[in-house]
Amino acid sequence: MTLPSAAAPAITSREVVLKECFGDELLDVMNFLNEVVMRFPEAISFAPGRPLESMFKVQQHLSAIETYVQACSARKGCSPEAIWREFGQYSLTNGIISDLIANHLERDESIHVPPSAIITTVGAQEAMAIVLTGLFDQARDILLVSDPTYIGITGLARLMNIRVVPVPADAHGLEPNAVERAIVHASRDGRVRALYDIPDFNNPLGTSLPLDRRIALLDVCRRHDVLMIEDNPYGMFAYDHARMPTLKALDERGTVLYIGSFSKTLFPGLRMGYLVADQRVGSSAGPLARALSSVKSLLTVNTPPLLQAAVGGELLREGGSLEAIVAPKRAQYKKQRDAMLVALARTFGGGPQGVTWNAPAGGFFLTLTLPFAFETADLQICAGKYGVIVSPMRFFCVGPPRTNQIRLSFSYVDPQRIAEGIERLGAFVRDRVSGAGNRH
Amino acid sequence: MTLPSAAAPAITSREVVLKECFGDELLDVMNFLNEVVMRFPEAISFAPGRPLESMFKVQQHLSAIETYVQACSARKGCSPEAIWREFGQYSLTNGIISDLIANHLERDESIHVPPSAIITTVGAQEAMAIVLTGLFDQARDILLVSDPTYIGITGLARLMNIRVVPVPADAHGLEPNAVERAIVHASRDGRVRALYDIPDFNNPLGTSLPLDRRIALLDVCRRHDVLMIEDNPYGMFAYDHARMPTLKALDERGTVLYIGSFSKTLFPGLRMGYLVADQRVGSSAGPLARALSSVKSLLTVNTPPLLQAAVGGELLREGGSLEAIVAPKRAQYKKQRDAMLVALARTFGGGPQGVTWNAPAGGFFLTLTLPFAFETADLQICAGKYGVIVSPMRFFCVGPPRTNQIRLSFSYVDPQRIAEGIERLGAFVRDRVSGAGNRH
Repeated sequence: MTLPSAAAPAITSREVVLKECFGDELLDVMNFLNEVVMRFPEAISFAPGRPLESMFKVQQHLSAIETYVQACSARKGCSPEAIWREFGQYSLTNGIISDLIANHLERDESIHVPPSAIITTVGAQEAMAIVLTGLFDQARDILLVSDPTYIGITGLARLMNIRVVPVPADAHGLEPNAVERAIVHASRDGRVRALYDIPDFNNPLGTSLPLDRRIALLDVCRRHDVLMIEDNPYGMFAYDHARMPTLKALDERGTVLYIGSFSKTLFPGLRMGYLVADQRVGSSAGPLARALSSVKSLLTVNTPPLLQAAVGGELLREGGSLEAIVAPKRAQYKKQRDAMLVALARTFGGGPQGVTWNAPAGGFFLTLTLPFAFETADLQICAGKYGVIVSPMRFFCVGPPRTNQIRLSFSYVDPQRIAEGIERLGAFVRDRVSGAGNRH
Repeated sequence: MTLPSAAAPAITSREVVLKECFGDELLDVMNFLNEVVMRFPEAISFAPGRPLESMFKVQQHLSAIETYVQACSARKGCSPEAIWREFGQYSLTNGIISDLIANHLERDESIHVPPSAIITTVGAQEAMAIVLTGLFDQARDILLVSDPTYIGITGLARLMNIRVVPVPADAHGLEPNAVERAIVHASRDGRVRALYDIPDFNNPLGTSLPLDRRIALLDVCRRHDVLMIEDNPYGMFAYDHARMPTLKALDERGTVLYIGSFSKTLFPGLRMGYLVADQRVGSSAGPLARALSSVKSLLTVNTPPLLQAAVGGELLREGGSLEAIVAPKRAQYKKQRDAMLVALARTFGGGPQGVTWNAPAGGFFLTLTLPFAFETADLQICAGKYGVIVSPMRFFCVGPPRTNQIRLSFSYVDPQRIAEGIERLGAFVRDRVSGAGNRH
């Protein structure tokens, strides 16, 4: 089979736009991060922010569809067969398990919102697409992002021609005064519509936003009429102490749009996330989520009901809380984080190499700072010669590229391999610092 | 639970944009069409273009996941458990069953494309979102649509600020000379990037594009460097004679982007569609589908692997063709179409009322032309007083609103109810023509 060659229409303009957005090198970063494991099967990869497959209960969660079918059948007084058929049909745009998600948010996140404020989405990514498509006027609106940040939000914004302005994060994440300065400065060029951040166990940094900053940040955003987009895929993975409240749990004024995900608590193949938009719209009685359903319907019509039913069934089985399902996963990821911190201390601690790192209190990632710039070529060298894969931090940067930093993910590698992988990284760093690594 | 009220950020600008796009009245058309059945449970509805639930084999198709798991397990030489876990993980952006879809396209549609040209999508709607996001420069590109047309494409284009220019369809669909005139005329204001149509059993009209027009249309598009977006959800539902070749089957120059769907052949709750983009991009070796994977990854990351596996399993079981699964559905829909044509002839035939209709050779819809304008108020009157629901054709119009036409869907109502529903519609028309209907 060959591709059409003669006189095919010129597929160039938008492609050029894409390349201008990302740069040639970064065009495939998203795919790289998802597919790198397949390309370098022999290397130990600290690159992808994937959850550990051995923890997945795919068939168990899928069997929860039956639990949800039985519950619907009892509630509606019709046969299980009728419910199964209903799940085969086009369904409600904003989803069928909003009541169960609202209950889960109360139980596990201390977030109190009505079911009508929730849109079930095809992963958190679609929630971002709904927000950027539905709430941004690209002619004038600006998206602020904590920098570095998740590439799924900046890539999407650029794809949709929405201006992105970075707010540099420090060792604790966003600093409210820096946010306010950025808002004031950016407001000269347009309207700052929203600020995106992952306050809990940040991707890519591994930072946690302190409580006083959360409160101050909400105040800054409210005063400047800026929406806060809080993305919280890792919140239930706190390893050291009680969790801090999410921004949404602290939000009394409708400042926060909250994005949740079942990719880490259950498994990513569900492609199940949700958007919480409880803001009142104009004089309308309904929440913003209802207005945004037009946008959802134009992107994917509705989220697959059968997968909603699987999540709904698990939430029913578990009485609304995912804690029992998450606990063993959290214990495993904590082991992996600990293994990485121990290995880093053993490999780089107290040495003369000037390598430093942070100790994340949860989530999947930490930041490693090197005494030299980590180039794209180093990615290939690390993977090919040393058998270890990492993510250059500048992949995630909108502003200055943090050339000396890399993101290490400990979510996808078991403790023994983590120790081995960090040793390999140590060998690379030693060779590179001594000049040996440059010969390749 | 109450919504935040005090000092919530102003959620207005984009909403205003949305209302400008659709008009207040049309803002909820998509939701209306999907949810109208729930709002008027007592009425006979010819409005939604839904497939008939009684034909769904939801559990049977879902059980095909196991078939696909076994096949993967054998091919890859790993355990079924490992395959199940793999389906729980983040997956390839463009999907995992492209080889099976390519085979299905050969068997059932005589379309020959390499698997690398296929992107599996969350329903056909996401395929449209990928095309409009990835290939349109909204500053200058124009989308032509056959008019009236599927509201999912025009709504999406407007949401994304892409200019839409209608090309009026006649009794056989798009007329190639009219298309060429529209291209030439619109090219004064920008670049005509693509033309959207449903050539087979058009939604909303029920027309089928004649073969000579298909050939001429491809020639016009190719000469003017305009992509043809062929949306084909109903192609396998031909009732009277052998199918005509799709535009994609006739396409030798990479003129056509083809959008497929499993919503009608299997069931809509799968949310499984696909985009065929086999055009060569610039000097790249890969097809356009590969370049567009960046866009797909930023909208939904990937299509749920478990649902891809369900479709893949059915395609394996059926040896690549969906014919055996579709045959009984086609027979049922044909019965329903015949029942509607018989009922229309009985109710309106030869009478003085001046009601006319077309006889579609396949698909879910036909066009009824009334001797008076069918207003929005008539929708409520029909549903509430006469117990029958229809879609005003102007819901689907970009250009002149075809006020005297309605779309009747025969896909969602059994033959007996169809007869009853058309009788009710007859009563409404008689009262309306005689002036009685105006009193309500």
